[in-house]
Amino acid sequence: MKRVKLTISYDGTRYCGWQVQNNGPTVEEAVTLAVKKVTGEDVKLLGASRTDAGVHALGNVAVFDTSSPVPADKFCFALNSYLPEDIVVLDSCEVAADFHPRHCESRKTYEYRIRNTRFPLATDRLYTHHVHKKLDTEAMRRAAAFVTGEHDFTSFCSVGAQVESKVRTVYSLDILEDGGVITLRICGNGFLYNMVRIIAGTLIEVGLGLRDPEGMGDVILGMDRNLAGPTAPAKGLTLIKIDFL
Amino acid sequence: MKRVKLTISYDGTRYCGWQVQNNGPTVEEAVTLAVKKVTGEDVKLLGASRTDAGVHALGNVAVFDTSSPVPADKFCFALNSYLPEDIVVLDSCEVAADFHPRHCESRKTYEYRIRNTRFPLATDRLYTHHVHKKLDTEAMRRAAAFVTGEHDFTSFCSVGAQVESKVRTVYSLDILEDGGVITLRICGNGFLYNMVRIIAGTLIEVGLGLRDPEGMGDVILGMDRNLAGPTAPAKGLTLIKIDFL
Repeated sequence: MKRVKLTISYDGTRYCGWQVQNNGPTVEEAVTLAVKKVTGEDVKLLGASRTDAGVHALGNVAVFDTSSPVPADKFCFALNSYLPEDIVVLDSCEVAADFHPRHCESRKTYEYRIRNTRFPLATDRLYTHHVHKKLDTEAMRRAAAFVTGEHDFTSFCSVGAQVESKVRTVYSLDILEDGGVITLRICGNGFLYNMVRIIAGTLIEVGLGLRDPEGMGDVILGMDRNLAGPTAPAKGLTLIKIDFL
Repeated sequence: MKRVKLTISYDGTRYCGWQVQNNGPTVEEAVTLAVKKVTGEDVKLLGASRTDAGVHALGNVAVFDTSSPVPADKFCFALNSYLPEDIVVLDSCEVAADFHPRHCESRKTYEYRIRNTRFPLATDRLYTHHVHKKLDTEAMRRAAAFVTGEHDFTSFCSVGAQVESKVRTVYSLDILEDGGVITLRICGNGFLYNMVRIIAGTLIEVGLGLRDPEGMGDVILGMDRNLAGPTAPAKGLTLIKIDFL
């Protein structure tokens, strides 16, 4: 028996998110089925990040236990031959039998991409959120500075999320611009339900001049979801990578 | 009556190319239908570049004549409200009544993108051609140097193409690398049928070590399609822009 760790990229467009559910196809379901085809076993995947419907990933992580003779580093090749082309296992390796991707310290990096041009572009429409009015990125950067550090992020968590503590640390939040696309790149030790999308939605309001950038500190201190902006659309969000510490 | 010029971006994935044909949907057909919805007129679009099935565009150009009262610069908004989301008119303006996008001098820029990593990436699979073996980009650059300039490009033209002259000028052919993607960026005064894809297929063979980079000159001089490499897949190709001189 060995525990195999997968690094998985997917285009979330046609999936109802990571986690198995009844109302449509999920990434977890597709990967579990591919493992069954390779090993003949019904495994339980442990995923690092339960991404929402429509969210993309370049490097989500999941582990499973198997008695298969397939070497751990060959699983990526075997699984890719059974997976649809919008899910690709980029790497596979053996990890300690007690390694759990949600129960150990990690650093997650997400990107939220905004196409800020008059019209969307046909070839990146699935991976960016289009905002046609010009965003003030300097104002967005001033607001973003309040987000970094350790805070209670209740204001940036969808109501109904069941977690013990809403304190998280954001290590960095950079706002990059390239060819009409504004990328919010955020790195932290964990993110609450919809947290990145609510931060993005709030920063977009700042960029549109609808919200004072210096008010961002009060939004955090207020610990009330109603103080923050809307949840930005899923398709702009990509889980870039997870580093385990 | 006025002549309106459109700058059009599209994701070629689900289209049988630009030009109207019987075996499936085309971009020309979709745009013509949108013009009909806006103006009530049956117009004949004159396209600058008849891209193949599966090829993408950030800036193809087409013109049409209309008696519609809609101002030329407002057509982009009107057309986008009727177009599917994988076709976006980025700009519209009035041009001289005798402006024909294929009968005047222009400079076209194409990019051919190769994902050169062990596995494809789910989120760019539709817009790159995946080559898993590491490509030698220095050798590709040496071969690319033979392509620039004025040449008879018969060796890089699919057999059966009906054109008077196969002499074209390539102004530049740059090979860029970024995050596992190799981009061949080529700019010229015109391109023969499949020319960019055959140049890409030949340079990939050079990059794989299957072909001597210094042999590229003889491929051009030989004026024989059999001397060049295969036609690289359509999905890696994007028409970036057309500058009219």
